[in-house]
Amino acid sequence: HEMLLGAGFARDLAETPAVLGRTLDTNAEALGAARLLVAGAASVRLLGIGSSRHAAGIGAAALELAGMRADVPPAPGSAVPPPVLRSADVVVVVSQSGETPALVAAALRARDLGCRIISVTNSRGRLAALADVRLDSSAGPERVVAASKSVSSSVLLLRGLAGDVDALPLVTAVEQLLGADTSRLVAGAHPGHVVAGGLGAEWVAAEAALKLAETGGRLVTGEPLVEHLHGPVAVPVTTLALVEPDDPNAAGLAGDVARIGSDPSYELVLARLTDPACAAVLALVAGQVAALAWARRGGVDADAARGLSKVTRTA
Amino acid sequence: HEMLLGAGFARDLAETPAVLGRTLDTNAEALGAARLLVAGAASVRLLGIGSSRHAAGIGAAALELAGMRADVPPAPGSAVPPPVLRSADVVVVVSQSGETPALVAAALRARDLGCRIISVTNSRGRLAALADVRLDSSAGPERVVAASKSVSSSVLLLRGLAGDVDALPLVTAVEQLLGADTSRLVAGAHPGHVVAGGLGAEWVAAEAALKLAETGGRLVTGEPLVEHLHGPVAVPVTTLALVEPDDPNAAGLAGDVARIGSDPSYELVLARLTDPACAAVLALVAGQVAALAWARRGGVDADAARGLSKVTRTA
Repeated sequence: HEMLLGAGFARDLAETPAVLGRTLDTNAEALGAARLLVAGAASVRLLGIGSSRHAAGIGAAALELAGMRADVPPAPGSAVPPPVLRSADVVVVVSQSGETPALVAAALRARDLGCRIISVTNSRGRLAALADVRLDSSAGPERVVAASKSVSSSVLLLRGLAGDVDALPLVTAVEQLLGADTSRLVAGAHPGHVVAGGLGAEWVAAEAALKLAETGGRLVTGEPLVEHLHGPVAVPVTTLALVEPDDPNAAGLAGDVARIGSDPSYELVLARLTDPACAAVLALVAGQVAALAWARRGGVDADAARGLSKVTRTA
Repeated sequence: HEMLLGAGFARDLAETPAVLGRTLDTNAEALGAARLLVAGAASVRLLGIGSSRHAAGIGAAALELAGMRADVPPAPGSAVPPPVLRSADVVVVVSQSGETPALVAAALRARDLGCRIISVTNSRGRLAALADVRLDSSAGPERVVAASKSVSSSVLLLRGLAGDVDALPLVTAVEQLLGADTSRLVAGAHPGHVVAGGLGAEWVAAEAALKLAETGGRLVTGEPLVEHLHGPVAVPVTTLALVEPDDPNAAGLAGDVARIGSDPSYELVLARLTDPACAAVLALVAGQVAALAWARRGGVDADAARGLSKVTRTA
């Protein structure tokens, strides 16, 4: 019975390896055009809201790692001052639906200012229609509101903007992760806090915390390892750490458990991947796996939409 | 007796109007030099960790509002890829202590790459020593680990980088806020989530959530209004909204309470200020006031350091 809970989310997750395996190939031509645009740009500004903004943040980190100037302005909306854009900038707009009104408005403004637009969407919507280059996360429909496979493939596409990448080691690592036994992971108290290391750590942690909240209905915070060690949250709470085998900051985590008197934390040590952005995608999937496992452990249906909606209300 | 709890934090808060009233004057000469640097920069990248990074984020938004290209790279640390920097960029480093090793390392790297450095610190430390222009938040020592007055004055200084500003309306509004009755604010359940609107909303919300966590020992999340309305956290939790009188997104909040079945939320409507960055400082102080009020309401000492330390462990 327990395995019936969150069956839709589980199916979305199970499709992730296949999605990641095909995304770069099906976008090969568009990625070539998009790479030319970003290589010639003064800077790249990536726009998104929610999980798509988290994906954009990891993408910005991947572009910067490749030596290109990239960042993520504030989530757009009415009463939010729009970012400074110059005609030599490229704007990358990330949106699962491709229809979020605030993102459409931001993209139209960018086009009016002379910027070239790259869209990363999971459906042919208004954003794809107005973009100079359209990338398609090729993830198929998300069965539940809490997006998973489309977020992972969007990050892989954004990594592709920065240059050639081999997705095969990531696909293999994700397959292993999805097949792994999660019983040890859910043995104690529900995590209230997620920390992550590596490329785009703040966005990985934020996305994992959001997934735990969306699927399990509990309050969860997230931050990168370096922020956590700078001033660990002064709350005795169980922490889920998504860390890579060689992360030098991971060693400081065990001491925190004793120091802040929390329940034992969970350290999910991920497979070693050469490409830092692929490692970030693997960490994202690990957060999704943990979210499903914790929802089931608590008898909660990860598929339930609760207050969430795929239709955005922001303008 | 209740008023003795958090006496140190209360004294830091009480000094905020005086600090804000003098900061621009005592930094007048340095601000003039710093403005010349940022006006001539290709772009401005602001670095910080923790509350200082939140301040940097609001500062970046203020610079962008004034038409300058500005952003906040990931919190620096070992294993965090450093930002792309060109010699025409100006790097602004924000740190209360002025000593955080990861920030010193980042500033030294920026200097080696030919960038000019502006420091914003609350003490003459290593960051001030290596900067081309030193701004001093002039806040006096923070009595407790949870920084307050120095964060507010750092944001005002960063606003000063963007051009002339009159601090007087802000000082008056902060005085009124500190003198206001908070009994209605703490009448129900402790907020588990903070949303904020206006300039730098994501950083204001993150800082208010951090202050509530640091002083009250409870888990609190934070996000900007536009993110909240895009996909409100799927957790039935009491929300504290820090909103400005004219924020068009604030109208959507009341519906959320009914929709996600949470306890009634708190809306703290702030004084109307013409300058958006000054409004952000006022919202920061409102978050601090709420944090102290909630700690006292729960019989918790806001001054207790818990697991927190002023000495950073990140490198």
